[in-house]
Amino acid sequence: MTIQKICILGAGTLGSRVAIQSAISGYEVSVYDIHEEALDFGFKTMKKILAQLEKGQLLKEPQEKILSRIYFTTAPEKAIQDADFVNESVTEDVEIKKKVWKQFGEIAPQKTIFTTNTSYLLPSMFAEESGRPEKFCAFHFHDVFYSRIVDTMPHPGTEPELIPLLEELGRKLNQVPILVKKENPGYIFNTMLLALIGAAGKLLTGEVGSVEDIDRSWMVNFHMPMGPFGILDSIGLDTAWHVTKNRKDSASQAFAALLKTYIDAGKLGEKTGEGFYKYPHPAYKAPNFIK
Amino acid sequence: MTIQKICILGAGTLGSRVAIQSAISGYEVSVYDIHEEALDFGFKTMKKILAQLEKGQLLKEPQEKILSRIYFTTAPEKAIQDADFVNESVTEDVEIKKKVWKQFGEIAPQKTIFTTNTSYLLPSMFAEESGRPEKFCAFHFHDVFYSRIVDTMPHPGTEPELIPLLEELGRKLNQVPILVKKENPGYIFNTMLLALIGAAGKLLTGEVGSVEDIDRSWMVNFHMPMGPFGILDSIGLDTAWHVTKNRKDSASQAFAALLKTYIDAGKLGEKTGEGFYKYPHPAYKAPNFIK
Repeated sequence: MTIQKICILGAGTLGSRVAIQSAISGYEVSVYDIHEEALDFGFKTMKKILAQLEKGQLLKEPQEKILSRIYFTTAPEKAIQDADFVNESVTEDVEIKKKVWKQFGEIAPQKTIFTTNTSYLLPSMFAEESGRPEKFCAFHFHDVFYSRIVDTMPHPGTEPELIPLLEELGRKLNQVPILVKKENPGYIFNTMLLALIGAAGKLLTGEVGSVEDIDRSWMVNFHMPMGPFGILDSIGLDTAWHVTKNRKDSASQAFAALLKTYIDAGKLGEKTGEGFYKYPHPAYKAPNFIK
Repeated sequence: MTIQKICILGAGTLGSRVAIQSAISGYEVSVYDIHEEALDFGFKTMKKILAQLEKGQLLKEPQEKILSRIYFTTAPEKAIQDADFVNESVTEDVEIKKKVWKQFGEIAPQKTIFTTNTSYLLPSMFAEESGRPEKFCAFHFHDVFYSRIVDTMPHPGTEPELIPLLEELGRKLNQVPILVKKENPGYIFNTMLLALIGAAGKLLTGEVGSVEDIDRSWMVNFHMPMGPFGILDSIGLDTAWHVTKNRKDSASQAFAALLKTYIDAGKLGEKTGEGFYKYPHPAYKAPNFIK
């Protein structure tokens, strides 16, 4: 089959990015959300991205032409009409995802492929609700533009024919497709990132090194623009806390407890202006930080 | 005190690099090794590094002038004469290090500061043998030129006054000094690197992803020139195996067993022409690897 029309469920940060890249790649796109305000946020996000890409001379078509391929709606039937492919980025909650997939499974055309963009849940947790588990798979974007990985992660009931089709779609969406051969929370990249962050957290709570020295070690040796605590500030300390507190080893529990003190003080990272560093000018970006 | 003369024990890869950087920074340097051939290797290594630095217009003095500050010797008394500071990079073996430190502790001037460049051992394991544990500290370089971190890691008996002195010396040697506040095997960077490599190994032995897809995920998302398996090939699979097999969790044991099959087949990484990739043109360096 040929994918021509893409339906995006959820107009949040990630859904909007997948939608605009789909339109840039020439697909017809419908964007669904239950709230008009969410669609409005999505529309503004997409316009910002297009403006940035145009500034970088990365667009081959006028912005209006790209936007004209996108249809925003709060009506499920209109969103799913003629869709060949669905990518869902709704709230990261099993019950919400089950409900959404049950709803769209009942009204989608028979041909439609269903994919979820879940970050830490597994597709098998809600594949059955869709009514077509064999056509159901995780298809997980990172941030679409700076981090261009897309993970294809089948659950045990996904039909194997779906995999090459999704990998091909990933390439057309300007992503690097990665096959996650079996269900794994956090796919591949986040599993490694969490291991790095866990080690950094243990060095901090164990009083082996300071936030700054831990970040410096990583930045200087790998020539990277930020270290684990800078990364944590950009992810959000609340998100990191949710993942860390579910790990039962004592080092993770100690780090989760530390993260909680930041959260309770309203320091969630970049988005609140303070986390391990203060924004908009965090110490790690100062020229003398690694001198 | 002012450090003017630096004594390097061990003319291997790392010792040679520390020695030549010391001479570049203007210090008088003596390089000691028990074998003449090792000194010869060290001299050649230093000349290669100087040639590369000159090519990159990174030298402020003629190569001959820099080399004229370095004295090579197999005589311990000559090496240690007038030395203000010793940095030891001999074989990574507790007994050998104990023996070397006992030997040099007996003949060194009273003023001399002793530091070890050990990678995974701890300074407290041989500080007493030196006869001056209060003047003994780990001072650990990475590769001196590409990875410019130097870790200052005291043992419980190190006198606190030594720390700022070593950090200042680190800066003069064009390094970024990191304080490792308490003894920790692998310091800060290697602790994090091992966590990353352990997670990658678990994804591979657990058949979640391929070597290539695991590396791709890291490279694309972090815009890095290599992923964990490329890094392993450059470290050497034998070194990685020694560290991994000492970890008792089942994932580390499974990964150590996999590494052993490579080692038994003579595939130690870049240095033998093959590891997870084939050299000199590993797949991860091909332009289409992340497309």
